[in-house]
Amino acid sequence: MSVTRAELKDIQSLLTKKGRREQHRFLAEGVRLLEEAIRHRVRPELVLYAVHGTSDRGKELIDLFARDKVRIEEISAKQLEQVSDTETPQGLVGMFRLPPHDLTELSTAGLRRYLLCENISDPGNLGTLFRSALAFGFEAVLTAGQSAEPFSPKVVRASAGTVFGVRHGVDTIDSVISYAKRQQIAIVATGRTGAMTLRELRKTIGKRPVMLAIGSEADGISPLLQRAATYIVRIDHEPEVESLNAAVAGSILMKEIYSSWTEDKK
Amino acid sequence: MSVTRAELKDIQSLLTKKGRREQHRFLAEGVRLLEEAIRHRVRPELVLYAVHGTSDRGKELIDLFARDKVRIEEISAKQLEQVSDTETPQGLVGMFRLPPHDLTELSTAGLRRYLLCENISDPGNLGTLFRSALAFGFEAVLTAGQSAEPFSPKVVRASAGTVFGVRHGVDTIDSVISYAKRQQIAIVATGRTGAMTLRELRKTIGKRPVMLAIGSEADGISPLLQRAATYIVRIDHEPEVESLNAAVAGSILMKEIYSSWTEDKK
Repeated sequence: MSVTRAELKDIQSLLTKKGRREQHRFLAEGVRLLEEAIRHRVRPELVLYAVHGTSDRGKELIDLFARDKVRIEEISAKQLEQVSDTETPQGLVGMFRLPPHDLTELSTAGLRRYLLCENISDPGNLGTLFRSALAFGFEAVLTAGQSAEPFSPKVVRASAGTVFGVRHGVDTIDSVISYAKRQQIAIVATGRTGAMTLRELRKTIGKRPVMLAIGSEADGISPLLQRAATYIVRIDHEPEVESLNAAVAGSILMKEIYSSWTEDKK
Repeated sequence: MSVTRAELKDIQSLLTKKGRREQHRFLAEGVRLLEEAIRHRVRPELVLYAVHGTSDRGKELIDLFARDKVRIEEISAKQLEQVSDTETPQGLVGMFRLPPHDLTELSTAGLRRYLLCENISDPGNLGTLFRSALAFGFEAVLTAGQSAEPFSPKVVRASAGTVFGVRHGVDTIDSVISYAKRQQIAIVATGRTGAMTLRELRKTIGKRPVMLAIGSEADGISPLLQRAATYIVRIDHEPEVESLNAAVAGSILMKEIYSSWTEDKK
């Protein structure tokens, strides 16, 4: 068996939003990201590789996939370039099914910590937030508004493959707020004039289920979400800087909430 | 007066590392970054603008520079594209002199908090670290090893203009370590197997002058720097993630050190 031209064209179109939406699939490129897929037990439907571009670590990985009966196809270096998003293709690309992203599916999972990304349009920031979410025990990342798409090549890369390990939901802000209320999850939002410091938040939040909401750097979270928030928290910093990077602010807050869950506090 | 062709060519070459090094100048583009320059009282040598691409906010800014006797030149939209690093040029570009970056100049300034970036090669991460440094009261950012260049267009952009507000030094790791020892500055480095938690660090560090060292995500800080470190600290997180993003890790640590300086602790 080999990859047909039509098939390759379909795979190439997964580099676009339209293609991913139509085919319900996405791509992850390079040894590092495919290793993360294995670590999180996410199985590709297909792995493409170019013999001359593949490192020893890449070859081991291909053997591993082969033992797992994943379909593997060799293609030319030129074909690999066509399905690659990077300037220097990394020898192999995996094709995966998009995971489910309905909030209703999440509701039955008994999750305790959610990150809500509202209008996080920068793929680097969204990917970094996925990475910190997995690091700090946040079980699901929800995206709403004008957020980047979690399975675009840039986000997958910036996430260092952690998109494979975190659940994802996407919906309107209204639906997400209703979901939180229904599930009795406290919404923690950031605001420059937030009444609560990080310290106070840690004391108050205890081990309640939380949804941490991060908004865009330019506008913060929307008025709708501000009104729905159970707590508004601020990260104190010097006035010389208008705001922190969104991924940094989100990560600092996730770390605080994580600490309040894991540390024995007196 | 107008901009000559040769001059424009020189300015265009400031988009390259070679050009910046030869001319000791750099560029910052767009209203937002130029507003930050004003906020930090850094005066451009020249501002170029294209009438049709400039917003009202941009025009106000040009008036402000004019009152400050900055040289201002109108160029065509096409010429603006040539000196722009972005896909959609933002109407105006400022040219600035590179600030001094010798450690010896820093030594007389009585600084208390330094961030040392070793091999932070991603411009987005380096820019974000500058931003968090200014936010959390770090007075100087030092770069060493294979770090990105702080005044490249990408770093300036990712810093949200905070490069105008933080001192910068660049030198070899050896020199930076000698500098810290000479100045009796405690070096705090991150390590996965670091003996100290953030909490312990906060208690230990008190208000001593510190240099926080951040290394590359792939390799961490160099053995040389590890040996020189006064404290090695870890950020606890779930084992599902190998490491945090370098800018996130650095920002979390800066925030902790900032808190230990600013909060009244019992």
